[in-house]
Amino acid sequence: MRLRFLTVFVLLVGAVSWAQTPQPQIQPVVSPEVHPDGRVTFRLLAPKAQEVLLRGDWMSGATSEKFEKDPATGVWRVTLGPFQPDIYGYTFSIDGAVSLDPRNTETKPSSRTSGSSVLDVPGKGTLYEVRDVPHGRIEAQWYKSPAIGGTRRFFVYVPPGYDKDPSTHYPVFYLLHGSGDTEGEWPWYARANFIMDNLLADGKIRPMLVVMPFGHTVPANDLTPESRPRNTQLMEDDLLKNIIPAVESRYRTLPGPKNRAIAGLSMGGGQAINVGLANLDTFSWIGVFSAGANGGGAPRDTKGFETKVAGVLADAAATNKKISLLWIGCGREDATMKSAEQLTGILDAHKIKYTFRQSDGAHTQRVWRRYLAELAPQLFR
Amino acid sequence: MRLRFLTVFVLLVGAVSWAQTPQPQIQPVVSPEVHPDGRVTFRLLAPKAQEVLLRGDWMSGATSEKFEKDPATGVWRVTLGPFQPDIYGYTFSIDGAVSLDPRNTETKPSSRTSGSSVLDVPGKGTLYEVRDVPHGRIEAQWYKSPAIGGTRRFFVYVPPGYDKDPSTHYPVFYLLHGSGDTEGEWPWYARANFIMDNLLADGKIRPMLVVMPFGHTVPANDLTPESRPRNTQLMEDDLLKNIIPAVESRYRTLPGPKNRAIAGLSMGGGQAINVGLANLDTFSWIGVFSAGANGGGAPRDTKGFETKVAGVLADAAATNKKISLLWIGCGREDATMKSAEQLTGILDAHKIKYTFRQSDGAHTQRVWRRYLAELAPQLFR
Repeated sequence: MRLRFLTVFVLLVGAVSWAQTPQPQIQPVVSPEVHPDGRVTFRLLAPKAQEVLLRGDWMSGATSEKFEKDPATGVWRVTLGPFQPDIYGYTFSIDGAVSLDPRNTETKPSSRTSGSSVLDVPGKGTLYEVRDVPHGRIEAQWYKSPAIGGTRRFFVYVPPGYDKDPSTHYPVFYLLHGSGDTEGEWPWYARANFIMDNLLADGKIRPMLVVMPFGHTVPANDLTPESRPRNTQLMEDDLLKNIIPAVESRYRTLPGPKNRAIAGLSMGGGQAINVGLANLDTFSWIGVFSAGANGGGAPRDTKGFETKVAGVLADAAATNKKISLLWIGCGREDATMKSAEQLTGILDAHKIKYTFRQSDGAHTQRVWRRYLAELAPQLFR
Repeated sequence: MRLRFLTVFVLLVGAVSWAQTPQPQIQPVVSPEVHPDGRVTFRLLAPKAQEVLLRGDWMSGATSEKFEKDPATGVWRVTLGPFQPDIYGYTFSIDGAVSLDPRNTETKPSSRTSGSSVLDVPGKGTLYEVRDVPHGRIEAQWYKSPAIGGTRRFFVYVPPGYDKDPSTHYPVFYLLHGSGDTEGEWPWYARANFIMDNLLADGKIRPMLVVMPFGHTVPANDLTPESRPRNTQLMEDDLLKNIIPAVESRYRTLPGPKNRAIAGLSMGGGQAINVGLANLDTFSWIGVFSAGANGGGAPRDTKGFETKVAGVLADAAATNKKISLLWIGCGREDATMKSAEQLTGILDAHKIKYTFRQSDGAHTQRVWRRYLAELAPQLFR
């Protein structure tokens, strides 16, 4: 992994793309700098700025932190924490403009903006620690999508050992991201591959393929109320008609619903419960991370969902027989909890069995990484 | 591919991570917007900024373009071009702070900064056009590197058809990036996979694996004069001792120097000529894109190179027999031309055969994409 936190300032002649433009001859800043005690100093070179703020995904509500400027250097700084070893996202506001931390090389990808900067507070024993164990690989696969139009991409986690025995076939876990994310959310930001490597090395999961598609099937910037059900329907079409056939023709997969799982976070959780319940002949394992019947956020009209899966809800005996596991998780500090409870209410009313995991945490990937590590060991048993 | 250029403004409730913070209730901006005539409008919401500039990799020297502010909305804008269909990199300066375009979802990765925003001016007939042809895949592989320390990553382009016949073995092209880039430069920014897909579909290249490692073996921010030769030496160690063995144990490869090529851009070109010439029993195909014996930029001391490959330079007859192709390319608008000529001067003095391609263009990936498409058809013949 790349060294991102230099403890000494180094002269960076030509390192910055703006270096050729006239600017104060100062030593470039280091940001973020993680101190041994877990506190973190963020810095920004912005000689002419009036106000610099930081917003982190660990802050609740509309709060932000103010930087202070060193007038001699034009460097703004703020020290926060201590932070527990984990991965955090943040952005700066420079005179009202949202910006990444220009000195941070690692970015959480986004389908709406330039994303957010990644604060990686290292530590032993994290779920995604790069341990000395066999590593799987991530494959980027392109496929034609008549369902949506054009050529699209999904990522696949291929477990270590896959190439060893060409007669072995694998179950497949379809893992969906949230609104505003990309297909890079799970592999690059959540580090799903290292989580799976570690679970496998510890004997906690069955070897499986994890497929991570792009879940915005209408433009990600379209947030009109009509777009959500259309997005879910197109995702269902794309999965059933394009993605699953592509996966099963390109990889050695095991057939049938007992060998296919679908789970997602937030928007992807809404997709998983809709697509999963409506297609129990395709999936028998369903995971819903911090979502209700309509995805993340505040409770929304669930009529569309209840209509779509009316037959499944009406026949609890048959449905419960088909479902191997319906796992719902939500953080107690997550505003989506009300949506999740709305969903469990519907399931209760129809006597559909499920597991409801109420955990610590808010609406962040720090919670969903843990859910992945809790759910994956239960799959395909 | 994702829709990035909306032609209408859409209401983006909750789309921006700062949306919860109090700010003017205006419609979010679209940036960049490519007009039908190839002109491009860049926009930035920065209500309190004093000055916003744009710097693009198509500009020479220290020039930049000034934005103008609409006081009513706090949105800054500038329209530039027309641009030819191609891929361009740019950054903003917001009151002296370097920033990505916050409304642009596509970023060129960097090992020193948050990178630069990507301007993709679409058009038919580009080298990397996503055509209706069989697509290869990109694999992210992790490997232990005793040579450098820790676990590192390389990407591999696996051509379409690789899985069809398990008895077919492939030549391997090791393709290196430039200073400040990452192992993502060739696959994600240069779109090497689509270039190779198209060349293959047109019958212009032999099917091959393309391995794209991370070429910073000392911290990318270390720009001291001592760091360059050390970086090259560690890259040689990592390639020979770690990367090539990993590739040849994980893929079906053809053995011997006639089946291995090494090429790189700028810093990577310096690595390719040093590692390639010093290891003609491993590589017989060498490509140097916009570089001299010491990488890109102004001419540097070449004594280290001349000492390292003294034996190879001294015996032209034996060396020319071992080299299948030594291909050097450089743009006439590239300041590195002098370094490239310094290298060809050394080769001339020792009667080592090479091809020198002097092309249009400066020190940008727009040139190197073309070099990839020119060099790859000549390899492994």
